[in-house]
Amino acid sequence: MTGLKLYHCRDARSFRALWALEELGLDYDLEVMPFPPRARVEGYKDINPLGTVPALVADCHLMTESAAIPHFLATRYGPSDLAVAPGEDAYPDYLNFLHMGEATLTFPQTIHLRYTAFQPGRAAEAAEDYAEWFGSRLRNAEQLMGAEFACAGRFTMADISVGYAVMLALAIGLEAQVTPGMRAYFERLSQRGGFRRAKERQGQGRIAT
Amino acid sequence: MTGLKLYHCRDARSFRALWALEELGLDYDLEVMPFPPRARVEGYKDINPLGTVPALVADCHLMTESAAIPHFLATRYGPSDLAVAPGEDAYPDYLNFLHMGEATLTFPQTIHLRYTAFQPGRAAEAAEDYAEWFGSRLRNAEQLMGAEFACAGRFTMADISVGYAVMLALAIGLEAQVTPGMRAYFERLSQRGGFRRAKERQGQGRIAT
Repeated sequence: MTGLKLYHCRDARSFRALWALEELGLDYDLEVMPFPPRARVEGYKDINPLGTVPALVADCHLMTESAAIPHFLATRYGPSDLAVAPGEDAYPDYLNFLHMGEATLTFPQTIHLRYTAFQPGRAAEAAEDYAEWFGSRLRNAEQLMGAEFACAGRFTMADISVGYAVMLALAIGLEAQVTPGMRAYFERLSQRGGFRRAKERQGQGRIAT
Repeated sequence: MTGLKLYHCRDARSFRALWALEELGLDYDLEVMPFPPRARVEGYKDINPLGTVPALVADCHLMTESAAIPHFLATRYGPSDLAVAPGEDAYPDYLNFLHMGEATLTFPQTIHLRYTAFQPGRAAEAAEDYAEWFGSRLRNAEQLMGAEFACAGRFTMADISVGYAVMLALAIGLEAQVTPGMRAYFERLSQRGGFRRAKERQGQGRIAT
């Protein structure tokens, strides 16, 4: 037993953790919750004071950062070539894309989502600005990526980080910001067994394309 | 020679990379540029297509994510106890704080900064929302941190990630969101030799407190 439990909302950022768990074939417990759990799941803030997903509990340690978890799993429970090792040529690219998927690509999307879906009309300019910002950064990412995968010439946890950002864009009305190349990249990733198992495990086969 | 060159703007997010280089005592070239370099440094987008800082060039590989770089440096050019190793108990906490410093704590501050300093009046509600959001997440972080350092009972690259978020808050008018405990944490960090050398190296001793 690995002592892993994931608190998840369907297709939310915690999907990165679920996808990584399935790619690695690890044993874990899964709790799928309604969104947003801070408002809809009593006692959730006792588990995760931030009230956000993901919350991964690993041997009594709490992880809440969706791009950190895939790398943690691959390096703590590996060795696995889903992580890139410090001695590999592509190591700097790997860590960069791992962080970029969330810090540079997903966060701006959450601003767009907030001011279009949850608080429409409150800051429409910010929704617009960060939709554009996301598109611009995604095109930059595409320019820096390898032909088939983000880096290292193979599928890695960096693809889970970046691929989820594309999946989210397609789900929340930012399709116009996704180039055909990045759409094809996500289509390829979504054919993987690990991706499909994660979709099945979360209880509903909806794929955001 | 490590073949490292850092493109930096004073006290910008690239300070994380500069601080990490100084903590590790590595050899590197430094280019200090006016902000924002995309508009003010001709040819910068040929080096970094995103136009952002940091840009770390490591043996012809480009890194642009400020929280990824400190961990990269410690694990590629280490071993160093500034990183936490996969077998250590605190490894999940370390990776989580490393990502959290940027993805959860710094990004919301940049929204506040944009709509107060660079485009005042455009989306004042967003500036206000994300100032609050930052404060709330910083208090959550404090609740999860160790007594003296973010994790592992020692100074690590996770402290550079989180500590810079506090440094930025104190510099851009978000002091009200920083608790006395987090201010004291940053004060302790800023006494370190590595921090002071980074401040000196960037050419001016301004400390944002």
